[in-house]
Amino acid sequence: MRWIKFTAAGSTSWGILEGEQIIETRGEPFAKWERAGRSHKLADVKIEIPLIPRTFYCAGLNYVRHLKEAADKRGEVPRVPTRAEIGYRAQNALIAHDENVVIPRDATEQVHYEGELVVVIGKTAKHLTEDNALSCVLGYTIGNDVSERTWQREDRTFWRSKNTDTFKPMGPWIETDVDLDAMHTNVRLNGEVRTSFRTNDMLFSIAHFISTMTRYLTLYPGDVIWMGTDGSSPNIKAGDVVEVEITGIGTLRNRFVAEQL
Amino acid sequence: MRWIKFTAAGSTSWGILEGEQIIETRGEPFAKWERAGRSHKLADVKIEIPLIPRTFYCAGLNYVRHLKEAADKRGEVPRVPTRAEIGYRAQNALIAHDENVVIPRDATEQVHYEGELVVVIGKTAKHLTEDNALSCVLGYTIGNDVSERTWQREDRTFWRSKNTDTFKPMGPWIETDVDLDAMHTNVRLNGEVRTSFRTNDMLFSIAHFISTMTRYLTLYPGDVIWMGTDGSSPNIKAGDVVEVEITGIGTLRNRFVAEQL
Repeated sequence: MRWIKFTAAGSTSWGILEGEQIIETRGEPFAKWERAGRSHKLADVKIEIPLIPRTFYCAGLNYVRHLKEAADKRGEVPRVPTRAEIGYRAQNALIAHDENVVIPRDATEQVHYEGELVVVIGKTAKHLTEDNALSCVLGYTIGNDVSERTWQREDRTFWRSKNTDTFKPMGPWIETDVDLDAMHTNVRLNGEVRTSFRTNDMLFSIAHFISTMTRYLTLYPGDVIWMGTDGSSPNIKAGDVVEVEITGIGTLRNRFVAEQL
Repeated sequence: MRWIKFTAAGSTSWGILEGEQIIETRGEPFAKWERAGRSHKLADVKIEIPLIPRTFYCAGLNYVRHLKEAADKRGEVPRVPTRAEIGYRAQNALIAHDENVVIPRDATEQVHYEGELVVVIGKTAKHLTEDNALSCVLGYTIGNDVSERTWQREDRTFWRSKNTDTFKPMGPWIETDVDLDAMHTNVRLNGEVRTSFRTNDMLFSIAHFISTMTRYLTLYPGDVIWMGTDGSSPNIKAGDVVEVEITGIGTLRNRFVAEQL
């Protein structure tokens, strides 16, 4: 089932996407909901951010090739994490499918994409085991963890390198039925595939992360966990269009533009 | 004016605290509100977390003595930040005044308090200058940035050292009228003052942080910025009560207890 948040005729609602039709719902996918009777063509609505997460988790370094390619660029030996330690991103930076990523005036040319699988939590959860970890998951969507690498290297935190406004596209919708092992992530720059990897080829699995996290913290409906990226990105410039496609979910597309003041 | 979030007779609302009386309101302090006509004695209600922030900002290292004492303990020279770079904490960890901080079974004895001034944002803001930065502030509350120092040193992120459930007490209410320069922060352990500092004696001022942050990011109503702490903390153990008092706001009090499984 595909949950989509959308705006039509000035009103924002959740709906279920079936093919190119949206069946509008009342309520929320995390709680009680029912079909509202109205339907819309996907092409006629504005797709919104699926949700503003309560806590915005991010796995960071979770694919081996990404670690190695980043270390190679710095002339270093990759430091591969030995434990699943979750990090964070910031809600201010979220934008929807088809909205623009705005490159700040003073950014360097090293603006990169990171195509990521996003786990959307559907149930309150603590002390899960790896065996039952996925029971708290509502579904999956797609994220682009846009990063300014110069700031990422030089700043003490990721506040502007990764959390500048518009640097966290997420969407276009939440797919509840996926086959993790069959998934492939393809990132296209202006229509051409530039990065490609098996989505589930992670250092630490989704179940391992959730089980580890919930030893110390409670996951809540609407929390999201971005699972990290593999490979590397060319420099992205104003005018470029980046599409992150993940098998079984869909494609998250965003244009990059220059900041106008 | 003091804004308080409280529960009485099973219903949670905002109210205005005048002395020991709460005047219940309809609406939110960030938007339209009006007095609802009902009033309650402060002693009769449960005080709630003032709000779950949309983005939960934290200044981190922002007082010189705290930096020096932490470095001394490690036998190092303090590295004083040269730029105001904001960090983050996690929403899952928030608890209210008088709720218990739960020390995980496997925590070491190095559980510390950090008494902090918390800035509550009231208006959407971007590109503010230092001169008009405080125009987006609704008011101020108090935070205790509870930290497990062994995990803080050894983990790659602050996920459990600072963001374990219950590690972020915040409250008891939001004071809109303060004199920043007259404020003093006193932290009491079981009734005895153990840490004391001038609240506004910061490395980077609130106005400087807000002006720097809003070059790249939008602040939204209900965002909070925890401003960091000075000095150091003794080890806190189950049964201890920590009170953070800031002049002109009030006292945030929480008992520490051991995790029961």
